[in-house]
Amino acid sequence: MDRRDFTRLAALSILARVLAGAAPSHAAAPVTAETAERHHQEAMLRYAELTGGPKLSIGMLVYPGMFLQDLVGPLSMFEALMNRDIHLLWKNLDPVGNDGSGGPALIPVKPTTTFSQCPTQLDVLFVPGGVPGSFTMMEDSTVLDFLARAAPNARFVTSVCTGSLILGAAGLLDGYRATSHWATRDVLAELGAIPTPGRIVTDRNRITGGGVTAGLDFGLALVAQLRNRSYAEAIQLYLEYDPDPGFNAGSPEKAPPIVTAFLNDMFAGMREAAFATARRARKRASRDF
Amino acid sequence: MDRRDFTRLAALSILARVLAGAAPSHAAAPVTAETAERHHQEAMLRYAELTGGPKLSIGMLVYPGMFLQDLVGPLSMFEALMNRDIHLLWKNLDPVGNDGSGGPALIPVKPTTTFSQCPTQLDVLFVPGGVPGSFTMMEDSTVLDFLARAAPNARFVTSVCTGSLILGAAGLLDGYRATSHWATRDVLAELGAIPTPGRIVTDRNRITGGGVTAGLDFGLALVAQLRNRSYAEAIQLYLEYDPDPGFNAGSPEKAPPIVTAFLNDMFAGMREAAFATARRARKRASRDF
Repeated sequence: MDRRDFTRLAALSILARVLAGAAPSHAAAPVTAETAERHHQEAMLRYAELTGGPKLSIGMLVYPGMFLQDLVGPLSMFEALMNRDIHLLWKNLDPVGNDGSGGPALIPVKPTTTFSQCPTQLDVLFVPGGVPGSFTMMEDSTVLDFLARAAPNARFVTSVCTGSLILGAAGLLDGYRATSHWATRDVLAELGAIPTPGRIVTDRNRITGGGVTAGLDFGLALVAQLRNRSYAEAIQLYLEYDPDPGFNAGSPEKAPPIVTAFLNDMFAGMREAAFATARRARKRASRDF
Repeated sequence: MDRRDFTRLAALSILARVLAGAAPSHAAAPVTAETAERHHQEAMLRYAELTGGPKLSIGMLVYPGMFLQDLVGPLSMFEALMNRDIHLLWKNLDPVGNDGSGGPALIPVKPTTTFSQCPTQLDVLFVPGGVPGSFTMMEDSTVLDFLARAAPNARFVTSVCTGSLILGAAGLLDGYRATSHWATRDVLAELGAIPTPGRIVTDRNRITGGGVTAGLDFGLALVAQLRNRSYAEAIQLYLEYDPDPGFNAGSPEKAPPIVTAFLNDMFAGMREAAFATARRARKRASRDF
């Protein structure tokens, strides 16, 4: 019985119980936030065929200058899972800033777990993006050493946005197809990866997402891999992820030429810094190994 | 000259300069993160016809038990704007937790501004959702009083997800069409609003978004109103907001029946709590006014 059969069987079994009226234990009418929360948790257990599975260990790197949405998109998906530990990983437990706009961090993130406390076997090793933070990380030997040490034991080695440049600098994308923010995708070639367009690019156990908001799509796809498709769909409905951006400018190909020209100009310096940093990181890596 | 004419003119003017080669001041080759950031800021100024506009004052309520993505989606859009102040508003400056899953907060948010420090004239007053936090806020007289006091002077009074229930409890949606998370949309009727399906529902200066991830669409739509359409498109491209969820389960109508049945069961207790809280809030409001 493969995963799809299992999911279908689980779904039918649950549907039968719902139709038979077994599920609505809420007839006892909880009316406070606390009883509602208890009902929520009970339902998750009642649907254990969908929501169950072995304990997951998810490690997410956080760092100064990361972009908060890169982290929070996947985190929202992972937090909706039952039976998981989520670690926000950094050198120490001091809060790290994360304002992508270059100002002081509006919402600093406090790491939960130091590199040395990180479980050896992670189901997911995840690296968010952010400029200029990710460039600094590409040359931070403590961070690169940690990633290089954790990745071989991780089931999935993943990133969103310029997080893939950090993975690449750690030597983890050598010969892998990978993506990044559209403006830095070609920088990956400097790091030994094969730049590949796509909202999510999967090559063996490397899963890399596009820029910032791709983290939502990435997170959902990964949930389907970690558990099952129905659970991913349930989380999509839970978070009402039925996107409708209103405008059609989400990629350089789709955006009006003036908008793409503006951003190409805005990103010109950033791209130069990314290329220069990648070349230095690559040179250092080839010297070290 | 209306706004569309202005935007078109600005776009043409910028395009002309780009084509004339005036823009690439990066020929001086910045290669560090710092010089890249400076180039980025210079580009924003160079494109001032798109990015300029009067200083914006944006107030975002934060509270214990909010859902972090509800806040961070719109925040990512607003932070990309030039010339704006963003206030994270709460009773005091103590960090507030926000784990939607009922556990301890993984990323507490530190407010930046107390209610009493909040500017009188806000361009945007925004309320995120979250369960059970939003239910608690619906009966918190300090929060409701602050919202009722700030809203009449705000250019836009807005929410995402169950944030609209808080606006409703503060008496701010009386007779307004509004939306909420799909599972709590009909609760709005108990608060005097007109429940209206839609990813974003606008009625006069009330703009309410659907569940959680609707905050990204909401934020982008609001940026277009606060500045102009081209700037919104530029931010869409900046954040690579070209969504592709992979599955088609983002609304109860689209999701497979088993998934909708699961979530309806999971949310049953929450809905009862929401209705009961809304009725109590409405009764209290009619007694107070």
